Amino acid sequence: MGLVNSAFSPEALQKLRHDNLGICHTRYSTTGISELQNCQPFVVDTLHGKIAVAHNGELINAQALRKRVMRHGVGLSTGSDSELITQLLALTPPMEEQDTPDWVARPVIKNLMSETPTSYSLLVMFRDVIYAVRDPYGNRPLCIGRIVPVSKLYSSGSGEQDTEGWVVSSESCSFQSIGAKYYREVLPGEIVQLSKHGVKSLSVVARPEGDAPAFCIFEYVYFARPDTIFEGQMVYTVRQRCGRQLAIESPTDADVVSTVPESATPAALGYAQQSGLPYIEVLCKNRYVGRTFIQPNTRLRQLGVAKKFGALSDNFAGKRVVLIDDSIVRGNTISPIIKLLKEAGATEVHIRVASPPIRFPCYMGINIPTKEELIANRPEFKDIAGYIGADSVKYLTIEGLVSAVQEGIATKQENKVIVSQKRVGHCTACLTGKYPVELEW
Amino acid sequence: MGLVNSAFSPEALQKLRHDNLGICHTRYSTTGISELQNCQPFVVDTLHGKIAVAHNGELINAQALRKRVMRHGVGLSTGSDSELITQLLALTPPMEEQDTPDWVARPVIKNLMSETPTSYSLLVMFRDVIYAVRDPYGNRPLCIGRIVPVSKLYSSGSGEQDTEGWVVSSESCSFQSIGAKYYREVLPGEIVQLSKHGVKSLSVVARPEGDAPAFCIFEYVYFARPDTIFEGQMVYTVRQRCGRQLAIESPTDADVVSTVPESATPAALGYAQQSGLPYIEVLCKNRYVGRTFIQPNTRLRQLGVAKKFGALSDNFAGKRVVLIDDSIVRGNTISPIIKLLKEAGATEVHIRVASPPIRFPCYMGINIPTKEELIANRPEFKDIAGYIGADSVKYLTIEGLVSAVQEGIATKQENKVIVSQKRVGHCTACLTGKYPVELEW
Amino acid sequence: MGLVNSAFSPEALQKLRHDNLGICHTRYSTTGISELQNCQPFVVDTLHGKIAVAHNGELINAQALRKRVMRHGVGLSTGSDSELITQLLALTPPMEEQDTPDWVARPVIKNLMSETPTSYSLLVMFRDVIYAVRDPYGNRPLCIGRIVPVSKLYSSGSGEQDTEGWVVSSESCSFQSIGAKYYREVLPGEIVQLSKHGVKSLSVVARPEGDAPAFCIFEYVYFARPDTIFEGQMVYTVRQRCGRQLAIESPTDADVVSTVPESATPAALGYAQQSGLPYIEVLCKNRYVGRTFIQPNTRLRQLGVAKKFGALSDNFAGKRVVLIDDSIVRGNTISPIIKLLKEAGATEVHIRVASPPIRFPCYMGINIPTKEELIANRPEFKDIAGYIGADSVKYLTIEGLVSAVQEGIATKQENKVIVSQKRVGHCTACLTGKYPVELEW
Amino acid sequence: MGLVNSAFSPEALQKLRHDNLGICHTRYSTTGISELQNCQPFVVDTLHGKIAVAHNGELINAQALRKRVMRHGVGLSTGSDSELITQLLALTPPMEEQDTPDWVARPVIKNLMSETPTSYSLLVMFRDVIYAVRDPYGNRPLCIGRIVPVSKLYSSGSGEQDTEGWVVSSESCSFQSIGAKYYREVLPGEIVQLSKHGVKSLSVVARPEGDAPAFCIFEYVYFARPDTIFEGQMVYTVRQRCGRQLAIESPTDADVVSTVPESATPAALGYAQQSGLPYIEVLCKNRYVGRTFIQPNTRLRQLGVAKKFGALSDNFAGKRVVLIDDSIVRGNTISPIIKLLKEAGATEVHIRVASPPIRFPCYMGINIPTKEELIANRPEFKDIAGYIGADSVKYLTIEGLVSAVQEGIATKQENKVIVSQKRVGHCTACLTGKYPVELEW
Repeated sequence: MGLVNSAFSPEALQKLRHDNLGICHTRYSTTGISELQNCQPFVVDTLHGKIAVAHNGELINAQALRKRVMRHGVGLSTGSDSELITQLLALTPPMEEQDTPDWVARPVIKNLMSETPTSYSLLVMFRDVIYAVRDPYGNRPLCIGRIVPVSKLYSSGSGEQDTEGWVVSSESCSFQSIGAKYYREVLPGEIVQLSKHGVKSLSVVARPEGDAPAFCIFEYVYFARPDTIFEGQMVYTVRQRCGRQLAIESPTDADVVSTVPESATPAALGYAQQSGLPYIEVLCKNRYVGRTFIQPNTRLRQLGVAKKFGALSDNFAGKRVVLIDDSIVRGNTISPIIKLLKEAGATEVHIRVASPPIRFPCYMGINIPTKEELIANRPEFKDIAGYIGADSVKYLTIEGLVSAVQEGIATKQENKVIVSQKRVGHCTACLTGKYPVELEW
Repeated sequence: MGLVNSAFSPEALQKLRHDNLGICHTRYSTTGISELQNCQPFVVDTLHGKIAVAHNGELINAQALRKRVMRHGVGLSTGSDSELITQLLALTPPMEEQDTPDWVARPVIKNLMSETPTSYSLLVMFRDVIYAVRDPYGNRPLCIGRIVPVSKLYSSGSGEQDTEGWVVSSESCSFQSIGAKYYREVLPGEIVQLSKHGVKSLSVVARPEGDAPAFCIFEYVYFARPDTIFEGQMVYTVRQRCGRQLAIESPTDADVVSTVPESATPAALGYAQQSGLPYIEVLCKNRYVGRTFIQPNTRLRQLGVAKKFGALSDNFAGKRVVLIDDSIVRGNTISPIIKLLKEAGATEVHIRVASPPIRFPCYMGINIPTKEELIANRPEFKDIAGYIGADSVKYLTIEGLVSAVQEGIATKQENKVIVSQKRVGHCTACLTGKYPVELEW
Repeated sequence: MGLVNSAFSPEALQKLRHDNLGICHTRYSTTGISELQNCQPFVVDTLHGKIAVAHNGELINAQALRKRVMRHGVGLSTGSDSELITQLLALTPPMEEQDTPDWVARPVIKNLMSETPTSYSLLVMFRDVIYAVRDPYGNRPLCIGRIVPVSKLYSSGSGEQDTEGWVVSSESCSFQSIGAKYYREVLPGEIVQLSKHGVKSLSVVARPEGDAPAFCIFEYVYFARPDTIFEGQMVYTVRQRCGRQLAIESPTDADVVSTVPESATPAALGYAQQSGLPYIEVLCKNRYVGRTFIQPNTRLRQLGVAKKFGALSDNFAGKRVVLIDDSIVRGNTISPIIKLLKEAGATEVHIRVASPPIRFPCYMGINIPTKEELIANRPEFKDIAGYIGADSVKYLTIEGLVSAVQEGIATKQENKVIVSQKRVGHCTACLTGKYPVELEW
Repeated sequence: MGLVNSAFSPEALQKLRHDNLGICHTRYSTTGISELQNCQPFVVDTLHGKIAVAHNGELINAQALRKRVMRHGVGLSTGSDSELITQLLALTPPMEEQDTPDWVARPVIKNLMSETPTSYSLLVMFRDVIYAVRDPYGNRPLCIGRIVPVSKLYSSGSGEQDTEGWVVSSESCSFQSIGAKYYREVLPGEIVQLSKHGVKSLSVVARPEGDAPAFCIFEYVYFARPDTIFEGQMVYTVRQRCGRQLAIESPTDADVVSTVPESATPAALGYAQQSGLPYIEVLCKNRYVGRTFIQPNTRLRQLGVAKKFGALSDNFAGKRVVLIDDSIVRGNTISPIIKLLKEAGATEVHIRVASPPIRFPCYMGINIPTKEELIANRPEFKDIAGYIGADSVKYLTIEGLVSAVQEGIATKQENKVIVSQKRVGHCTACLTGKYPVELEW
């Protein structure tokens, strides 16, 4: 429980067996349900030994799978998909003569993939092998990095405790932190085996319909750290292209361009470059407020966002500001920021949003508010500018977003296949309502 | 984790659904293994709803049962018997037409009892019913209490928040703390149902061989709180009888009788009454040392028991002391106490132990050291008095213990059957090596 | 803050300079005031170096002394007597030519003793010397112990980390825990110097009026651990004599004698021995309840003492019980115990209290309730037996208590003066209202 | 202890008396010394009542003042200047006939100001008045804000719990967080009284030599949050001017300008505007690393800054980068950043520092490394570019910094005097070695 730093205290690390492989999992806590039992990896003992599973995503047919497992006589101790996957793996009848790790990879994991289409990126640890698995739709990211000896890196490592090896992660940005280099993505439907013999692709399971994959477009828009690489391109660059596209689609008669820090900054710089308007900063973050857990009285609650941001009034007093945001979900953050800027002297505030309005729920792992809560589905969306107090509000179009994303996808990089030509495709279900898979699956 | 008081903080209690039934479990941590996963009750979701199980005891055929469950394709996430029992319950094929709580009680729990003979006292919660189950050997205790309105108790309750109901516990002493009164034991092999309709005995499963039960005799000697009632008699009284019996079997030519506080006090008073020697106190407990977790240096470690007890030297200086202990397991506690008493002026110290020597391991839930560690199996036991520095050492005989226990068993009490005549019998495996059930079961 | 064990964590101990002397202080928290600032020792930097003071007692003229210090221009950062004493020591004008530790002992500490009569036992640390000081009335205890090498003690110490030295404490019982032996008391008014040259008595300051000292008689009755030695006698023995005296003064027509565990046990055994009635146990302590900090609902609050003690009903059902208590302050503890015993079958309960009723407040460090709260000053005291539900209540007389205390005082022990003949005397102010010093001092 | 949020838990806040005035203090922990005793405000009881003091700064003659106080017979319990100031206030002989809060302000505080020239900004609370005091050199900042009812602010406050009043702080940026508006600075040498009667200037004590004040120039360069206002101008704007001035003084033949986030961003934007080069982002912060307290092995330690920042390589691969930093103190942060950028594809990295090199220690409250540790005093400074791996390194000149700071100082604002004309002046001692006051004062 808690941040990685507090979960892995020096005491906890000393208790780990210092072996040559392991898996772990971090989870952005999105719901209030008893968290401890949802901690991953989930480990179970089976006839063949222990199996551990870490899972990113959400099984679209989880309810049906739970019933199937329970009908077999298995009690499920948590509500987590991770336990469900682990019990599904344990359930596959063992073929005694084939009792090898390889046996696990092929019939057992393939059987799992035949039972559930999406969404999952998995790490399965069994004996001395780890399997990295991505669902056939490629809905959640997963990529491979190569751990480089420090002595070969930028820093003057002494060589002691130097290491080589492989690492798998949802976001490639984590590789740099541990001295690893981006190698390639796990392809949609691929089972990759990592062991002391290195990395080996075991098979690629095709999506049932044979169509293009459906990688979540919101990973580009919102979730990933900007230095992460998906499909051969850096997320930062995609966001900057979204800002440029937005400036083309929705130009503004204004004096300066700025950002809601920090996530919208690449799009704001892209908008400024395309429009020719100067880029300035209008808000400065109060670094301590994020950790606030007390709200001592009504007065402080009412001050709201004014506690979170300081207004750099000298930069924009008397000016017309274009403010770029990355997305507007509920609409209750941007409104007080606009009031703050106007109070501090902005003559006009025009909101430009670097993604299209979200209108539909996600059933594949992204915690989006209910349809009713989404601002784009509410009556006030008709006059959204009036509602949030802006002088105008414009969104990036769906076509604009898709083209900004797909224009930079690399299919090859340094002799390695990154994305196969026919396999470019993205899930835009939260924007369009077109889900990549029938929900009754 | 932790004491009941810290586990059930006001915050934790507020999160509980305030319903009319519940089960919980406290566990005396005897092993170092990751404790959190052994916390009970263990809860699993099944086709028919959630089942929760709390378990006291140790399944004598746990390894065979684990294999059986895993062969069926169930992964076990912990090493606890409690999870194993829960999955065994989930496994029993449901008879759809009989989908009632009652159905659970009869085929499901009876099936479990047919798969494992001992030792277990269980609480199984399913929907709005709790089942209290004791294994056919009656190895672990389990008894029922009736919650009495405070206004009818000794205290002048105002009547608000007053409650009636039923409660089940391993030790009857807990009833008084919550305002309940001892009602009766769950009989060996009995399944008792508790619901809003009250208490109902569903069936009594006989021990396979049809013999007398095998209630753990060490519950009398060591584990239970002295005000607990087993088989119609108070544990304190049994311990006092053991002291009297010991005085008959092993009289001593001495000046005073005393106790190793606090557990041996009833036996010491019994010995004093029988022998006619005056009862005095020789040791006074240092109340804070029990919680010590630091041992800053070798010197303090060497002082050992002198930190734990103060010598009341004026009471025994120049006298010959009979010191009663309840049991000697490893022999490393009594030795420094004897040194402490002699250092403080006792001319002789005679040890009288109110139970027989332990010679065999327990496989039914009691954490006894390995056979090799037990003092009674070690070479030094031949001259135990010399080894621990006593002037003489005598143990209660096995026959003496059994007669002290069985002489006071009540078969009826206030028109209620407590123990059926033919069902008097105790497990003395740790003393005799005669286990109540074949270990290969 | 907290118990010694948590305050002195391994980390905290490692931060200590491992020198050859030190002082510390434990405090039984009696008031709710911000505790941290009352932690001792109190340390201040002065022209001559740091002075540290630990204090047991309460300055009877604290208010006048605070004014005097503040009039000199010193701000006091806490309300503690310990800071006040430290600033009084810093205030004494230094005689530059005599700047030695010895100089501190004589003019500085003697000057302090001339400013305040009682009550204090002090440890003053300055450079490489510790002064142990007891006020001229000897109101609070203080005694000296000698640290013995472990190899010479009862335990078979290996000799490594062995230590010799001296130790000073309020209660001699603490010596045994660290491997020290009782040496002697610090006499009333004495200044004892401890340094690497050993123990040296510097002077004995007489009480102004020249009368006998006024050692707090309640240390015998209530506060001290029973194995502590005051004035050459063990506290346990004094309490036992109080029980015998009580049996002489207030015999009872009853069947058994018992105790409110654990503090009244010596008196109960004394009463039983003198009266010839059998001693039994009637209550068994619930070891976990003392730490309770939650009281989840009205019902549990009403159960009160029933959570704290179990009734050993088989020992006294159908019998007339004499129950010995050590003192009755507010009367709200004994009443529910009597109800509990009667509910469990006692036919009569006679309360015998091994000390006289408390009627007056203490201004010398003992936290006694206000005059109005004391049961002995309340109207219900007239029919105290009826009020608490007992069949009879009798107290030890003041004369009985004083003779039980003074009859065993040793003036010499193994060639050492313990108490000078003329210096036997005790403070009984809380019983008689006769304070040893005028309050306007 | 700890962040404001953890120190002022809801429980702690409930213990506060809810009065109409109070002072508090936050402290950036710069030394390892036992922190608790340095917590402020420091409170002492005096003849006239309690005095509480909060202090920002460092008394340049603290050692002499400590001696003076101790010679008077006062023991000092901590090493903090705050206690020293409090005892100096307590020491001033009271004039009984003038025993009013006003008396405190004039003779007592003025007397303190005559004993120590700098550096201090103080809050002194006495009875129902708070005094805000700034030393005659104006070395540390202090400003006044007016608390505005929420209903009059940007947010639609309901009016309940609405408040008006005054607030004093080191940095004006804190006002916005609690719904207050900047009013004015406390002038150098000024004593301002805050009470229920509002704000009143009591007197302005001139600097002994009568010269211009000496406000710490590093508050602009480094310490203050960018939205803070000093001397009528926003810190952000000063930093931007420093960047422009740097571009004039040290132009670069390069492709892009960037920042070491986040403190150097205003200067980088200023440099980009002045030079005409495009502003881009090159680094992205790893938000979780700042809280790291474990460094599990040598390998991770060697990776160093690569854990803290991700390289946004697509933005600068193949380009020549001008990287703006706000200051270089020890030189061990910038070097690995340069290596990281070059490793990620930058062809050249030119460092431009928006402040002059620090060469001298500060004795007025700023924790600057020793003279020997400062990079500007070390041999490697001669070839600083080679040492840190940059293609060139240039610093802002001292004259450039001073003019960038002083060019925007406002002397009046909305009819209020902000800074008196003759009183413009800054302490540049860490850059020039010219201290505003003789150190032997």
